[in-house]
Amino acid sequence: MQFHHEGYVSGEPRVLEAAGYGIDRAAELPEEMDVLIVGSGPAGMIAAAQLSKFPSLNVRMIERRGGRLELGQADGVQARSVESFNAFGFAERIIAEAYRITEMAIWNPNPDNRDEIIRTGRTLDDEGGTISEFPHLIVNQARVLDYFAEVALRSPGRIKPDYGWEFQTLTVHEEGDYPVEVKLIGSAGEQAGVERTVRAKYVVGCDGASSRVRKAMGRKLEGDAANHAWGVMDVIAKTDFPDWRLKATIHSKNGSILHIPREGGHLARIYVDLGEVPLDDNHAVRSTPIEEVIRRANEILSPYTLDVHHVAWSSVYEVGHRVTDKFDDVDDESRTPRVFITGDACHTHSAKAGQGMNVSMQDGWNIAWKLGFVLEGRSPASLLHTYSGERHEIAQNLIDFDKQWSSMMAKKPEEFESPDALERFYEDTFEFPAGFMTQYKPSVLTAGDEHQELATGFPIGKRFKSAKTIKRGDNNPVHLGHLHEADGRWRIYVFADPAAPGADSPAQRFGDWLGENPASPVVKYTPAGGDDDAWFDSKVIYQTDYTQVEFGDVPKVFWPEVGPWKVNCWEKVFANGLGNDIFDTRGILRDGAVVVVRPDQYVAAVMPLDATDEFAAFFDGVFTLQG
Amino acid sequence: MQFHHEGYVSGEPRVLEAAGYGIDRAAELPEEMDVLIVGSGPAGMIAAAQLSKFPSLNVRMIERRGGRLELGQADGVQARSVESFNAFGFAERIIAEAYRITEMAIWNPNPDNRDEIIRTGRTLDDEGGTISEFPHLIVNQARVLDYFAEVALRSPGRIKPDYGWEFQTLTVHEEGDYPVEVKLIGSAGEQAGVERTVRAKYVVGCDGASSRVRKAMGRKLEGDAANHAWGVMDVIAKTDFPDWRLKATIHSKNGSILHIPREGGHLARIYVDLGEVPLDDNHAVRSTPIEEVIRRANEILSPYTLDVHHVAWSSVYEVGHRVTDKFDDVDDESRTPRVFITGDACHTHSAKAGQGMNVSMQDGWNIAWKLGFVLEGRSPASLLHTYSGERHEIAQNLIDFDKQWSSMMAKKPEEFESPDALERFYEDTFEFPAGFMTQYKPSVLTAGDEHQELATGFPIGKRFKSAKTIKRGDNNPVHLGHLHEADGRWRIYVFADPAAPGADSPAQRFGDWLGENPASPVVKYTPAGGDDDAWFDSKVIYQTDYTQVEFGDVPKVFWPEVGPWKVNCWEKVFANGLGNDIFDTRGILRDGAVVVVRPDQYVAAVMPLDATDEFAAFFDGVFTLQG
Ligand SMILES: Cc1cc2nc3c(=O)[nH]c(=O)nc-3n(C[C@H](O)[C@H](O)[C@H](O)COP(=O)(O)OP(=O)(O)OC[C@H]3O[C@@H](n4cnc5c(N)ncnc54)[C@H](O)[C@@H]3O)c2cc1C
Ligand SMILES: Cc1cc2nc3c(=O)[nH]c(=O)nc-3n(C[C@H](O)[C@H](O)[C@H](O)COP(=O)(O)OP(=O)(O)OC[C@H]3O[C@@H](n4cnc5c(N)ncnc54)[C@H](O)[C@@H]3O)c2cc1C
Repeated sequence: MQFHHEGYVSGEPRVLEAAGYGIDRAAELPEEMDVLIVGSGPAGMIAAAQLSKFPSLNVRMIERRGGRLELGQADGVQARSVESFNAFGFAERIIAEAYRITEMAIWNPNPDNRDEIIRTGRTLDDEGGTISEFPHLIVNQARVLDYFAEVALRSPGRIKPDYGWEFQTLTVHEEGDYPVEVKLIGSAGEQAGVERTVRAKYVVGCDGASSRVRKAMGRKLEGDAANHAWGVMDVIAKTDFPDWRLKATIHSKNGSILHIPREGGHLARIYVDLGEVPLDDNHAVRSTPIEEVIRRANEILSPYTLDVHHVAWSSVYEVGHRVTDKFDDVDDESRTPRVFITGDACHTHSAKAGQGMNVSMQDGWNIAWKLGFVLEGRSPASLLHTYSGERHEIAQNLIDFDKQWSSMMAKKPEEFESPDALERFYEDTFEFPAGFMTQYKPSVLTAGDEHQELATGFPIGKRFKSAKTIKRGDNNPVHLGHLHEADGRWRIYVFADPAAPGADSPAQRFGDWLGENPASPVVKYTPAGGDDDAWFDSKVIYQTDYTQVEFGDVPKVFWPEVGPWKVNCWEKVFANGLGNDIFDTRGILRDGAVVVVRPDQYVAAVMPLDATDEFAAFFDGVFTLQG
Repeated sequence: MQFHHEGYVSGEPRVLEAAGYGIDRAAELPEEMDVLIVGSGPAGMIAAAQLSKFPSLNVRMIERRGGRLELGQADGVQARSVESFNAFGFAERIIAEAYRITEMAIWNPNPDNRDEIIRTGRTLDDEGGTISEFPHLIVNQARVLDYFAEVALRSPGRIKPDYGWEFQTLTVHEEGDYPVEVKLIGSAGEQAGVERTVRAKYVVGCDGASSRVRKAMGRKLEGDAANHAWGVMDVIAKTDFPDWRLKATIHSKNGSILHIPREGGHLARIYVDLGEVPLDDNHAVRSTPIEEVIRRANEILSPYTLDVHHVAWSSVYEVGHRVTDKFDDVDDESRTPRVFITGDACHTHSAKAGQGMNVSMQDGWNIAWKLGFVLEGRSPASLLHTYSGERHEIAQNLIDFDKQWSSMMAKKPEEFESPDALERFYEDTFEFPAGFMTQYKPSVLTAGDEHQELATGFPIGKRFKSAKTIKRGDNNPVHLGHLHEADGRWRIYVFADPAAPGADSPAQRFGDWLGENPASPVVKYTPAGGDDDAWFDSKVIYQTDYTQVEFGDVPKVFWPEVGPWKVNCWEKVFANGLGNDIFDTRGILRDGAVVVVRPDQYVAAVMPLDATDEFAAFFDGVFTLQG
């Protein structure tokens, strides 16, 4: 955590100084705003947290509910989401309070007595942490939202949800500074029933599966005709089921359960499979009483019993695999999109793979930084086309995967080719539910893979997979990727050739070019008057042992002067040492390489150290010169 | 973190439900109270945080200042303190914001040019984490206090400092329920100048080096006649000194510096040695101007320069090695002590070894749980004699060590026998400044070492050194010691013999005895009506692989029913597995052993599994039967 450079921070350093619209944020929803976020679920909250780092923009988030979410909904948090929480500064706190999945138990009918279940297997979740150094967590969606709300409020923009406002509909006008006209109605509190019209430059629909923003755009969720239904309950119970505190998939002759222990050591969530919902069901399944869900759970768990002492939350969760054909309001690129949908508003999938909240957050993060860039004038408006371009494909892949997953989970034990087929499938595809399979295709934001072999451990289009290195300065072993905060900056990682710092070498020349040449994006686009690293965070990693690296020898771009007192930043120089060799861990050739990473942590490009033209050209496609 | 068992917690789980005096805590300082803590420094704050876990007691903490500490004072946080922060639930948060020391640089005059300094060595701080899995941190004392204040406020007793009250003096009366009469005067805010008399059962003086509580008790700090003075400054500066972000000891022909980088990446604290203060100085040294301190720093750092751009805090810190002869108000054990002093009020030492804040916290924790026990009637009042008994010796040892340390640091380079003598000394004695040398002597709280060989890795009298094991239940690898919260409970760790759970074996028999036999302290002392683990947290650790352990087979005391819904607690059964063998790591003989740990994490006893009489006798010395 870096702070104090703008003045001594005596209190909580996680509270950043207010700026722009954050300084005297209007309590009332204004008439006009830059961005209106509709809905404060995971997608809306992450978008607000990200946009609060762009305080020059007036961003508001309305929410139909009268206050914070208290209970229920999703609880599965993938490692990729925890990595994202880290970028927003609250990973360590939510980890400390969440349940951590390290193992899943598999239960099936006892072949000797099919009336009873027995444990037939266990699979380790990300054994040895090869997929991620972050854990796989289970925690109430409400807590995830709380933490993001805190980030939004503590960031310079001081964004707070406007509770009690319901989106009704919108019209996109051809002209005007605020072309999107939005009709709202008060849904709680003093404004209940009050109708209002507001105008925004952009609207982001984060309003869940029955999204009105989606309807207003004229898009539809398409896919499965029928839904699959689950009786879901968060319960405190007395039970002799031995794996009460383990994630477990349970198949019995009486049906199946997905069992998820919850944070705090006592609560568990039980998903009782209620099967495919007939097309003519008309949501009748939703009135399945909780007693019936508990009765079925007991049947499935036999010979064990489940004596529910307290139901904290329950619901019948009915969902199908569906996706809209596009996530914005334009069918081609003839005009700038003005309205976007994210999360459940544009894709839904079964509860089993625990994807909903996680993918929704990545949608919200993706659109948020892009809106920040376009509205601040860092990038052309055309950048906004990449949102639907990138996220639609991911949603489609996910649904394909999820279908496969769900059908595996729904299979009767006797239908599998081999007894460990489920276990095997789970292990083979583990990267997917952990959230790391996303790989963006080449676009203005993602370079081609011509130079991929320079750094095979940083696949272009996938998220930057962190590794340990030594932070010269304090000589602490650190995870390089964990320093990537969600502050809207691009990261430029210069992995140096073997020469010592200071010697004339490709890395030294690249560093000097980066900091000084008028063609360098850092020089060309960084606004005058602020810090030299305001928009680009450039870091160098040497192959030599950290004891061989002195700051006086590194190019100035890696030791810039920052803050009102113009003192050096000592956090951008890294090196091998104390058993850490990131070149080895991430397959970086010893000739060195430049790795470019987007604000949302995806690898945008890998280039050789002498490819300054190519490097400049890449950024010329993303940034625009300030007016 | 365990929660939800008393009801569904939708918000921050770190906020515990209010109870007792916490439910409607009076805003005004009352006339009478159980405990009055004087001073809200590290010693007072930890005492308040601990006593807030005993909400049936009316505890107040007065503080002369009008509000929270904002700047300055100590900043070195030993691993033992971080371990303690973990017990109070905020380690992960303070670690995330603190500076972490992993290495110290050593600078000396360049033998070829004695006008300039050069780096002559580096020492790794706790290389490989052999001393502790917790880091050595640097963070503003104000933040440490903030976190403890938060714990005190979020714990059931809801204790908040009463700012703006200054302690004047006290009288201990022979009789009455509240025998200590205390005179206060308002020192800030509305009550400034107002005199008040309050009465308490016990008073804890945490009022720093010029303690009035100490004076009121008639005790004196004795020791060095003279003080050593340091010009201390927290600065933001531009410098070419290469180790600006490393802890460094710098000796030059112009004097010496202890350099401490601070949290946030930019600030550093520089201690400029101002030497021994003449006896007739009359605090003249304290008026050394900051310009002079900066000038000297520049002289010492030559050939490097230090261009101070901002001074966040500075002070001349003048201190000697001193200790009072006893830490309570009785000279023998003929009556119960009523007044205690902690921290700087009873011992002071040089700033160099960075001990002040750390030892003070251990004092505060020690007296706090004991007062909780005595006032709640868990223990006889005689327990309070152990406070001075235990902590006085520690303070004396510390001062002896600190003198040696300080004189090493003050030595001129040419005075050392060998060039790496300082480095060597630093490494050899590292456990001391890390806070782990404390070892309590046999007493009512610390058994003899007759059975030490059963568990050599848990030295009796030292703090329980954690190790990894598998928590059966969720099958997570966990650090056993990190589950020890500062909740006032004793821990009973039953390390089982090799038999499988359920088989008739010493561990099984001990477990059954512990949970069921009328002579067992758990049965005898645990108050009726509450949870079976309310006062004793009993855990079992099996040698077998965790996959061989099922809850149905373990003695009930390790799978108790808790909370209003009487559901099982699944967090007390552990086993080897996934590469973790705590028997191996901590030298526990395969026949098993019982390890008893006090509420403040010190090992009280090691016993064989069949020593039920001895075990019962130990606790009969600590607990009293409820009236
Ligand atoms: C009852 C329920 C149970 C669920 N159970 C599970 C589960 O068991 N497992 C699982 O993996 N996933 C579950 N989900 C899905 C999971 O919660 C979602 O995938 C995830 O929350 C998607 O995030 P989102 O931000 O896209 O939408 P949501 O979290 O749905 O957030 C949408 C927000 O928009 C608000 N809103 C809606 N319409 C308007 C409007 N017109 N104006 C203003 N605000 C509006 C809503 O109040 C809500 O706060 C459940 C969802 C629901 C609703
Ligand atoms: C100015 C200063 C600089 C220091 N610098 C360093 C340093 O550089 N390095 C280092 O290691 N240590 C330093 N110390 C020492 C370190 O802060 C202490 O060792 C540590 O704080 C001891 O904790 P404590 O709780 O015993 O006492 P303190 O932290 O001193 O707390 C005592 C508290 O009691 C309050 N108080 C005092 N008298 C009364 C009264 N009559 N009534 C009510 N309240 C009262 C005080 O306001 C204070 O809040 C410094 C101390 C001071 C005062």
